[in-house]
Amino acid sequence: MFKAEIKSETLKGLVNIISTLIDEVKFTIDQDGMSLKAVDPAHVAMIELNVGAKAFESYSASETEIGLDLDKVKSVLKLAGPGDIITMEQDETQGRLVFKIGNITRRMNLVDTSSMSDAKVPQLTLSAKIGISIDQLQKGIRAAESISDHISLKADPEGFELSCEGDTDYASLRVDKGDLVSLDASTPVCSLFPLDYFSNLVKAVPSGTEVVIELDNDYPVRMLFGLANGEANVCYFLAPRIESD
Amino acid sequence: MFKAEIKSETLKGLVNIISTLIDEVKFTIDQDGMSLKAVDPAHVAMIELNVGAKAFESYSASETEIGLDLDKVKSVLKLAGPGDIITMEQDETQGRLVFKIGNITRRMNLVDTSSMSDAKVPQLTLSAKIGISIDQLQKGIRAAESISDHISLKADPEGFELSCEGDTDYASLRVDKGDLVSLDASTPVCSLFPLDYFSNLVKAVPSGTEVVIELDNDYPVRMLFGLANGEANVCYFLAPRIESD
Amino acid sequence: MFKAEIKSETLKGLVNIISTLIDEVKFTIDQDGMSLKAVDPAHVAMIELNVGAKAFESYSASETEIGLDLDKVKSVLKLAGPGDIITMEQDETQGRLVFKIGNITRRMNLVDTSSMSDAKVPQLTLSAKIGISIDQLQKGIRAAESISDHISLKADPEGFELSCEGDTDYASLRVDKGDLVSLDASTPVCSLFPLDYFSNLVKAVPSGTEVVIELDNDYPVRMLFGLANGEANVCYFLAPRIESD
Repeated sequence: MFKAEIKSETLKGLVNIISTLIDEVKFTIDQDGMSLKAVDPAHVAMIELNVGAKAFESYSASETEIGLDLDKVKSVLKLAGPGDIITMEQDETQGRLVFKIGNITRRMNLVDTSSMSDAKVPQLTLSAKIGISIDQLQKGIRAAESISDHISLKADPEGFELSCEGDTDYASLRVDKGDLVSLDASTPVCSLFPLDYFSNLVKAVPSGTEVVIELDNDYPVRMLFGLANGEANVCYFLAPRIESD
Repeated sequence: MFKAEIKSETLKGLVNIISTLIDEVKFTIDQDGMSLKAVDPAHVAMIELNVGAKAFESYSASETEIGLDLDKVKSVLKLAGPGDIITMEQDETQGRLVFKIGNITRRMNLVDTSSMSDAKVPQLTLSAKIGISIDQLQKGIRAAESISDHISLKADPEGFELSCEGDTDYASLRVDKGDLVSLDASTPVCSLFPLDYFSNLVKAVPSGTEVVIELDNDYPVRMLFGLANGEANVCYFLAPRIESD
Repeated sequence: MFKAEIKSETLKGLVNIISTLIDEVKFTIDQDGMSLKAVDPAHVAMIELNVGAKAFESYSASETEIGLDLDKVKSVLKLAGPGDIITMEQDETQGRLVFKIGNITRRMNLVDTSSMSDAKVPQLTLSAKIGISIDQLQKGIRAAESISDHISLKADPEGFELSCEGDTDYASLRVDKGDLVSLDASTPVCSLFPLDYFSNLVKAVPSGTEVVIELDNDYPVRMLFGLANGEANVCYFLAPRIESD
């Protein structure tokens, strides 16, 4: 059983993040909220998302799973104006989810989740930890685009740097320690990542969000941030590109 | 003879409606105003439009016909800003229409109307009559898109419903009697229509317009509404899609 | 040696004008400013641009040349917000130009200028001289589009006219002497020009700019205008299309 009301902006924020990675998803639901662990088809990135019951205007559920096609959920979101409340209700007998926005009813078949296994979240100890505004990262991404397919993230005791080097061009964004939210990097670390994955995620995070980046040498990056006024938490992993010499 | 001045917004509103159906049109003109009866090339929909002389800022005409390519008229409308007055004058000796907007002159050859016959307006008695804001219909159209190629319009003594059913998805907009402008439906009626035609018309009608929908079982729908502060009247017919069982 | 700071809007205005003609350009630089003489690949139009040191927020240079790919400069401009200052510095040892905007660094290889010769500016005496707001020309261009590939510019003692004639359509913009900034045309003159070149330039000039047009019969047109609060000067030539009878 699952029935909940949610602000359209909140649902939109969650869907925007998940759909950078995957279209069909399985939400695991219980009385305290819903969660998701998903890997992209190429197994390059992973999202772990936990949405607490308080992220909803009202929430009532027992243990269940629902499989959703996020493109369809996006088409529902387009029907909602800012401030609209969206009601979602599972129609268990028929394997459907029913959305209501004002006098509009939108029903969709659920996606079969029997073949969807939960992704296994890697346990990593990463030596550097950077607290930064997503707006800085968004600025850096814009500078890096059209220069190379890869982006380098670096941290040292004095600051954080995002850079991109092509054959004839180079772009970088340097944020000194004083302009970061926090910085814990006793030794310099650096890893290279695919620009498209990193860029898609960074652009989907709402302006003003504070992100924690955990980084090491030639290791995956872990990014942590909150959505829905902190009632939802995202943990995003991205595999590094190891340069062969 | 035909010479008239019209607000650019008024002309734009008229052209937007007609061009949902057809590109080349014949206007029949006399001293009281201009009118048009047009069927789309597939004979699925029909528009009857009457524009009274009072819809114009100034109007002076004797009996005549002018054939226009609406794509060209749209390119003229793009030259006008809000509040601009457009002058139109028939150049009878040369079969041309001359538009003037401020210090811009735009002349175009008229389309030959000799092969354009007036469409015959069907005489129908339809049992249900619904007065509704176009904004409600526009909301319903957005919900129905991407679900099916057809849309169902229903009325019963308690309200009006627009719905769309696909293989895995369903969308509907229900407007109860109290939220309608008027409702006269003693028994339930329902017909199915091609979504693209209905959608194109509904989107072309200015927000805030009140529309009268006349409906019956498996019959054409008739939609009536005013433009140009009520000085122009539109009557739109759309043929139903009869479902074969 | 070249190091300068410039407002992003100023740099954008200059790049917009030059890039209507050519992508790779050579700037000739000395202590007083930078200049450029460029012809488009088809040798139909020419730009002569002089940017004085006062157009920059700070400027320090000795004689040098820099070759730039304007598409890359445009990608740098997209990183700057309104009011941002862009620092440019030549990295002579490595043949690069380094741009800085806040904490973003963007470096690009210079284009080889050895094969780029300066265009030779034609010396012309043209009999008519028209001072006009670019906004009038922009309005005229919009009216002419989709009618023909060529545009006619005319001046006579009473005013200026831009017109375009196709097989079935005609558009013109007439500006009477009183609505011009200035007019010096003792006898009527008229020349025909390729619409695309003229249109691209006219659209790139900022709204509100006053342009001087020098015109004669079947001769090139010369257009003169200032940018960067008059600290930069543009002289644009466009070859006429001579109609064969």
